[in-house]
Amino acid sequence: MHMQRIRVVKEALDANNTIARANRADFDRAGVTVVNLMSAPGAGKTTLLERTLARFDEGDPSEARPRFGVIEGDVQGNLDAQRLAEWHVPVVQINTDAGFGGECHLDANMVRSALPSMPLDAIDLLVIENVGNLVCPAEFKVGEDHRVMITAVTEGEDKPLKYPLMFRACELVIVNKIDLLPHLEVDVDRIVANVKAVHPDVRCMLVSAKTGEGLDEWCEWLASRRSQPALA
Amino acid sequence: MHMQRIRVVKEALDANNTIARANRADFDRAGVTVVNLMSAPGAGKTTLLERTLARFDEGDPSEARPRFGVIEGDVQGNLDAQRLAEWHVPVVQINTDAGFGGECHLDANMVRSALPSMPLDAIDLLVIENVGNLVCPAEFKVGEDHRVMITAVTEGEDKPLKYPLMFRACELVIVNKIDLLPHLEVDVDRIVANVKAVHPDVRCMLVSAKTGEGLDEWCEWLASRRSQPALA
Repeated sequence: MHMQRIRVVKEALDANNTIARANRADFDRAGVTVVNLMSAPGAGKTTLLERTLARFDEGDPSEARPRFGVIEGDVQGNLDAQRLAEWHVPVVQINTDAGFGGECHLDANMVRSALPSMPLDAIDLLVIENVGNLVCPAEFKVGEDHRVMITAVTEGEDKPLKYPLMFRACELVIVNKIDLLPHLEVDVDRIVANVKAVHPDVRCMLVSAKTGEGLDEWCEWLASRRSQPALA
Repeated sequence: MHMQRIRVVKEALDANNTIARANRADFDRAGVTVVNLMSAPGAGKTTLLERTLARFDEGDPSEARPRFGVIEGDVQGNLDAQRLAEWHVPVVQINTDAGFGGECHLDANMVRSALPSMPLDAIDLLVIENVGNLVCPAEFKVGEDHRVMITAVTEGEDKPLKYPLMFRACELVIVNKIDLLPHLEVDVDRIVANVKAVHPDVRCMLVSAKTGEGLDEWCEWLASRRSQPALA
């Protein structure tokens, strides 16, 4: 029983990787850099994206600003896609709720199914907002160049130790909601230390999507990713 | 491919239900009421349990207080079990990280494997703290009598609409961290309205595990569950 399950899971991950490579080839051909953005539910992925799109929208029009596209992954509904549509970037919604109450992650095939609706030739940076979950999204590549996660300080200090794969799978960890630190019994240095304990080389940024603190560093990082594929 | 996947998932859920029924029979035989406690990562399951155990510990010893047991589900580590062990109740840790980075939920077989370590005849109420995740735990029964979830106000107002299965699967939704409301752009009435929108008959409690607000109502509910199996 257990061995059979392992075989089935392995086959599913192998099949996923094959489709992820096909996605990646399409992205490369179009010169699009892809960021897979992951977090627990409610850590602030969509709010960070809203603020990010606003920031680039306000920037100097004479500068070459990246043209964004967004794929929104949710079990159900299109609330996040509606929020982001305001910024006049192409947004495609994927719902994972076909059968069995909903998949807890995006996989490469779901992303592939969204690509015909995404004008890859008209964008530079595609952000894929994954389903809110600290476990399975880290196991399913979708063809991304970069994996980024958000952990909110409201989630407590121990999450890197309890969900290490997610923290290891990402090259950048955004520690969000730092505006709430004065009201929490949480030590942000301890959060960062726990992140580094499971992934020593990872980059951490302290951010408040609400107040804008740390947004400059994040937007700089994001803009400089353009045509710099890094993930093997 | 898709049909094969559906078949595999259906078989897995059927097998899970069979084991869940065996667990339930063992719990019933021992007169133990079982609560499956679910939430996103960092919503406050363990803190609520700490405060709950403390509350009952401080109660009038002449009263018949429920004897608790706890099963802790985590991908990795035993931090939560360590926190709860302080209250001198039997705690069994389940780690879901065998292979593939970790399962994102407890299943009936994992709980079954923990039962030999749990003195069922010496407890009245068994709380099973599930892996932090708003999707898959709702799909896998573990033999519980009651399903309870926590949603933290810091997660925002839209979670019931985005993860409806979890909110529908539970008979009680605890809206936690209400002490932080003055610092958030979140309307708690809107959260409750969204919960009721996807599950009209569900009971909601507003709680701050940190300040103790709402704990009386929750502890009363919990104590009155003893030997009142309700879930079909």
